[in-house]
Amino acid sequence: MYPNKFENLILKFQNLPGVGRKTAERYAFETLNWEQQKKEEFVNALQVLIDGVDTCKVCGNLSDGDICSICSDQNRDHTLLCVVQSPKDILAIESIQEYKGVYHVLNGVINTSKGILPEDINIDSLVDRINKDEINEVILALDPTVEGETTSLYIEKLIGKDVLVTRLAYGIPMGGHLDYTDSLTLLKAFQGRK
Amino acid sequence: MYPNKFENLILKFQNLPGVGRKTAERYAFETLNWEQQKKEEFVNALQVLIDGVDTCKVCGNLSDGDICSICSDQNRDHTLLCVVQSPKDILAIESIQEYKGVYHVLNGVINTSKGILPEDINIDSLVDRINKDEINEVILALDPTVEGETTSLYIEKLIGKDVLVTRLAYGIPMGGHLDYTDSLTLLKAFQGRK
Ligand SMILES: [Zn+2]
Ligand SMILES: [Zn+2]
Repeated sequence: MYPNKFENLILKFQNLPGVGRKTAERYAFETLNWEQQKKEEFVNALQVLIDGVDTCKVCGNLSDGDICSICSDQNRDHTLLCVVQSPKDILAIESIQEYKGVYHVLNGVINTSKGILPEDINIDSLVDRINKDEINEVILALDPTVEGETTSLYIEKLIGKDVLVTRLAYGIPMGGHLDYTDSLTLLKAFQGRK
Repeated sequence: MYPNKFENLILKFQNLPGVGRKTAERYAFETLNWEQQKKEEFVNALQVLIDGVDTCKVCGNLSDGDICSICSDQNRDHTLLCVVQSPKDILAIESIQEYKGVYHVLNGVINTSKGILPEDINIDSLVDRINKDEINEVILALDPTVEGETTSLYIEKLIGKDVLVTRLAYGIPMGGHLDYTDSLTLLKAFQGRK
């Protein structure tokens, strides 16, 4: 019904998470009606998907260069290490302005049913860091899901008893997602970590 | 907080209609995690925004060439002309499989508060068509909003009494949008046009 290229645009918008046919059509018609400059800026911005975003060689956070702004900040406590699933969890934690340590991004959690094994996420580099750097405490801040729990237990076992390992307090609802947690809940979860 | 290019990606996703910060971040993280091929197909599809989509030289519908598939279909009734605001309304009407005439896309409605005057939308070409082609009936199928109403009255006055002018029956809720109307309501509105 629609011209091929326009239909294709709609189909591709449907690839975005939670976007159905109606919303994709809305996006397609709306973007098509934008002024030329706005269109160009949109398409140019998306080029980052092809070019890729740098990730920090230390912690795995998104970065503008080799080392992210958090890892290169000497005012932060580099003996305190918070382990998260994804870079967006860092933003959620940073927004409460409570935590002054550094991070380690696993980029996923162990999920055997999806074939995601310990070697598929950044656990090796975590263990390396703990062995090499002077770390006093590792805070496991994974989503309170079955997979997050499995991964936390796996890491705890691997680290052993030389380093203090804590978890965020369960103020976060089970099955919830850390980055969708409101700041206050996240703050309490942080303060009540055990 | 995010690397510049990634932050820019989020900001640009926020330009999409109804997309706030949280959703834009979700789109950005999700697309960044897509496989390379899926990313490329997405970015390539968006190129149509820059290149533009052809519009039918007769009716203003989106088209793969100079004349759209509806205008070039000789099995349709070319004496029956349905006037709509936007190409997406054509899709909504086509989906009920009731209407067998042709269309005219105004590409907007008169809206003096937004500075959209009769000469800014495709009214001149509509009058040309009515004068030149053999048209028996003009169906005004604009959104039942104040602006749609204003535009319908304006066109009705302009056409005069030589051609039968009808409107969709008001099964469509006032203030609603035609392309968000369910098929059954739209079908009834079509059949009950007056
Ligand atoms: Zn880093
Ligand atoms: Zn046409």
